[in-house]
Amino acid sequence: MSIHFRRQTEKLKKMVLTLGGMVEQALRDAINSLDQRDPELAQRVIRGDRQINSTEVEIEEECLATLALHQPVAFDLRYLIAILKMCNDLERIGDLAVNVAEQAKFLCSEEEIMHVPYDLTAMASRAQMMLKNALDALVNVDTTLAEGVRAADRQVDAIYREMFELIEAAMRENPHQLTQLIHYLQIGRQIERLADHAVNIAEDVLYLSNGEFFKKNAGDENDTIGRIGHA
Amino acid sequence: MSIHFRRQTEKLKKMVLTLGGMVEQALRDAINSLDQRDPELAQRVIRGDRQINSTEVEIEEECLATLALHQPVAFDLRYLIAILKMCNDLERIGDLAVNVAEQAKFLCSEEEIMHVPYDLTAMASRAQMMLKNALDALVNVDTTLAEGVRAADRQVDAIYREMFELIEAAMRENPHQLTQLIHYLQIGRQIERLADHAVNIAEDVLYLSNGEFFKKNAGDENDTIGRIGHA
Repeated sequence: MSIHFRRQTEKLKKMVLTLGGMVEQALRDAINSLDQRDPELAQRVIRGDRQINSTEVEIEEECLATLALHQPVAFDLRYLIAILKMCNDLERIGDLAVNVAEQAKFLCSEEEIMHVPYDLTAMASRAQMMLKNALDALVNVDTTLAEGVRAADRQVDAIYREMFELIEAAMRENPHQLTQLIHYLQIGRQIERLADHAVNIAEDVLYLSNGEFFKKNAGDENDTIGRIGHA
Repeated sequence: MSIHFRRQTEKLKKMVLTLGGMVEQALRDAINSLDQRDPELAQRVIRGDRQINSTEVEIEEECLATLALHQPVAFDLRYLIAILKMCNDLERIGDLAVNVAEQAKFLCSEEEIMHVPYDLTAMASRAQMMLKNALDALVNVDTTLAEGVRAADRQVDAIYREMFELIEAAMRENPHQLTQLIHYLQIGRQIERLADHAVNIAEDVLYLSNGEFFKKNAGDENDTIGRIGHA
């Protein structure tokens, strides 16, 4: 690897981590805006998405320029492609944070849910930890950490299934808060999807380190989440 | 462009169209399994996802080999990267078809919804048309067709908003069918997301033809869909 190429990949790595930090912050703010019933904070997340999108585009352009200039092969080529894919996942996590913020903003304008049947913040913390670990795994090309992210996904799926059932029961008990509860359920679904994107990033790290593809198989027959709430 | 490289991109284009065809079929079967209350057909979609995933991996490998061997620049480089991104979207559309199939399978095991408040098949047809047009736009690098796909997305979003309100009303009127109606709503949401992926593909075609990025801005303040139902 030439010194110039090494410098370039270091630069790209930093750019990806910056993007990762922006996305983590957006997610944290979106959850806080829900917790604190703060529509201005939610609005800030919504506005901030443009910057996340433009940062993703910048990284993609940088990757393409690096590919054209250095024409890497083997590990180096895979590394650049992994970065491209990772950015795509980060940008989508940013979109999910916006979705959460939009729903939080809506919920702020409605009567507060009296008996929130589920601790969404705890679920979000777990997904946030997965995202953080996936990014750390990238920095150190740490496959153990990446494997841990894959394992954690099953827990988040299980949490979402439980949440689905509790909210459905709450809908029956409090039909006057049906609208709010649908939104609450949808926020849970965003977080569950977000965890899936963290898994994608972890899988890119695994792919990078050993050249194999790991695909989360949505059609896995042991995966029963779809039955009770894939939205 | 060398003859060998041209042959290789023709091969890749065919592979992408094959993947596109598989995904279109999966989606059609998933919707039919819901319409006809056919759990076996739904199960076939779920099982078929493995093949979609492995085809995506094959195309990615072929793209990487082509990048390493031919080290293309300018349009040719962008073309290969566009194919990589497109495959990713197609694979995700395949996952959405699996989600629809899983929910259809669940709904087959429950009491039939008496007054289905919305024509989901019509909504699905529109999204399927967007997917078909996006793939055709790729084949001919047809920017007019690609622009049309972007425009159609607003219609699908509007349809989903209307659906959301009708189903919410139905939930109030028929609380004994709450579970089924939640699933029905979630299927609508899958179709709305699927249309977003068709837009991504169309944007890849636009990117390809003029080197500019077009990002659907999830934080667009004129986009009110999040307020009423981003899940």
